[in-house]
Amino acid sequence: MKDNIIILGHGSGGKLSHQLLDNLIVPILSGIGPRDQNDSALLEHDGRRLAFTTDSYVVDPIFFPGGNIGDLAINGTINDLAMSGAQPLAISVGLILEEGLPLEDLRTILTSMKQAAESADAQIVTGDTKVVPRGTADKIFINTSGIGFFDHDIDLRGNNAKVGDKILINGTIGDHGMAILASREGLELQSDIRTDSAALNGLVADLLKGLGEGVHAMRDPTRGGVATTLKEIALQSAVDISLQETALPIRDTVRGVCAILGLDPLFVANEGKLLAVVATDAAQEALQIMRRHPHGKEAVIIGEVTGESRGKVFMQTAIGGRRAIDMLAGEQLPRIC
Amino acid sequence: MKDNIIILGHGSGGKLSHQLLDNLIVPILSGIGPRDQNDSALLEHDGRRLAFTTDSYVVDPIFFPGGNIGDLAINGTINDLAMSGAQPLAISVGLILEEGLPLEDLRTILTSMKQAAESADAQIVTGDTKVVPRGTADKIFINTSGIGFFDHDIDLRGNNAKVGDKILINGTIGDHGMAILASREGLELQSDIRTDSAALNGLVADLLKGLGEGVHAMRDPTRGGVATTLKEIALQSAVDISLQETALPIRDTVRGVCAILGLDPLFVANEGKLLAVVATDAAQEALQIMRRHPHGKEAVIIGEVTGESRGKVFMQTAIGGRRAIDMLAGEQLPRIC
Repeated sequence: MKDNIIILGHGSGGKLSHQLLDNLIVPILSGIGPRDQNDSALLEHDGRRLAFTTDSYVVDPIFFPGGNIGDLAINGTINDLAMSGAQPLAISVGLILEEGLPLEDLRTILTSMKQAAESADAQIVTGDTKVVPRGTADKIFINTSGIGFFDHDIDLRGNNAKVGDKILINGTIGDHGMAILASREGLELQSDIRTDSAALNGLVADLLKGLGEGVHAMRDPTRGGVATTLKEIALQSAVDISLQETALPIRDTVRGVCAILGLDPLFVANEGKLLAVVATDAAQEALQIMRRHPHGKEAVIIGEVTGESRGKVFMQTAIGGRRAIDMLAGEQLPRIC
Repeated sequence: MKDNIIILGHGSGGKLSHQLLDNLIVPILSGIGPRDQNDSALLEHDGRRLAFTTDSYVVDPIFFPGGNIGDLAINGTINDLAMSGAQPLAISVGLILEEGLPLEDLRTILTSMKQAAESADAQIVTGDTKVVPRGTADKIFINTSGIGFFDHDIDLRGNNAKVGDKILINGTIGDHGMAILASREGLELQSDIRTDSAALNGLVADLLKGLGEGVHAMRDPTRGGVATTLKEIALQSAVDISLQETALPIRDTVRGVCAILGLDPLFVANEGKLLAVVATDAAQEALQIMRRHPHGKEAVIIGEVTGESRGKVFMQTAIGGRRAIDMLAGEQLPRIC
């Protein structure tokens, strides 16, 4: 590993993150491994299944169009539970505050957390607060951990994608990452780019209720974006995935800012999106269920599982070509969540 | 609140921390409240009780005599579960890494975490890693959250102390805080002061097995020290507590460094100690059980519950006087855990 120190790319969610996890962190803390790359750990206790997840939020800036670090932290952890098919039972909140943080900012952030939890029917049940001297943190970092419960037996882990399955997404991609970047860089013209941060547990419940085991896998494309997440699913399930470039829903403003900055929206983080891998014959119903939900109005089918055993992701381009899609290689946008 | 900004004292575990929690954080995130000041939240799901806790670790320095931020983080969360009477079912690890952290340091810390988890029979099951640019964190911050399960029905919350109960501690006080301070300030002469960081779930299991409901309350005196923790118990249970100064176990070196620095060991953090409030007729057996355990060899009775309804803590001093003990007022030692 480069220079034997941590570099920003190790936090990107892409290749360097995977290397750090696979070569250092997981082998040592091996209770975590073999790493399954899913968003939650699945526990079994006393005959009951539980999901358990943790995420630390270090987003910069802490306030951005459409949200702040607080609701982002609640929604993100609820989504990690939801992707395993679990509903939130309890959320914990660990705050690291930098000396000098205005109490008014803290109040605003906490209020957003409470509202986000309430609208997802989640309970914040325990917490911890630390304060560090000026210059040893950046305003506020938030850890949220969550316990989820299951009211079904469906296995949504990423290794269940099957040839013929359709890939659906519940709306436009790249909004969160570009909202953060536009806000950080002061690109005020792009004022209609807002984070898509949202809790997806309700949408997931609708899908599972409607389709049952027709849903084969779900994952939220956060750090590393849609490309990295699909690559992970392809590798876990040992299948190839083919995407239709023309089907990818991307707002014009997001596409424009990405073009100016030389970024590919396929690698930009989302915080209110899920990729659902569903059986062919369940795909149209999945689309209808998504579109009926407030967080799925712009749902589309973006691709399908085309073959076995290679773990590759291809894009059928708008001009009729085909290109291979890999994970995010380095650090594209640091501190996006 | 002073100047309407966060100050270091808000993280002390003492009065300012209580004010921040009671006046701002808990009222807003009110799912947490009314705040019960216990170390874990108690959940009930599907007829089963679970404990859930979270803690972020920001200790400075990250390596200190007897341990590092890694084993501290594991032991601390296991202890929060243990104080509610729960055994650890699963632990999560959230890492915030500063760009530039040597991978070798990370390796050492992770190895300590794994060892600490193993020796307490705890499983690390899920994790998250974020990286922030140089100067926006201090080397490494770690959040550990934990789920605990119960194999008994005993209620150990702090509001169960009763008049006549004895107060026990499982060994010397102030070791952790003074090890951190000595290390931070480069007081190399004090090389025999080491952290007491240890997982106490085994000791708690022994106490509950031996005494059952004879154990009325337990709490680990971390930030704010023995004084603050006893004051919390006194207030929660609406009782008065009397301490015997001559009974307090304090190492000579810890006492010496405290005297030089003008600190009171009663307010210094511990990371491998528990205060047990036990029925009078169970006190001697409690002492025997503690002393048979590796983490309780120096256990002693340090006081008793003397009266009802005032929430006061008194110290019977060595020279025969009596003084009131309050919570830690400001910031005594920042970043002690």
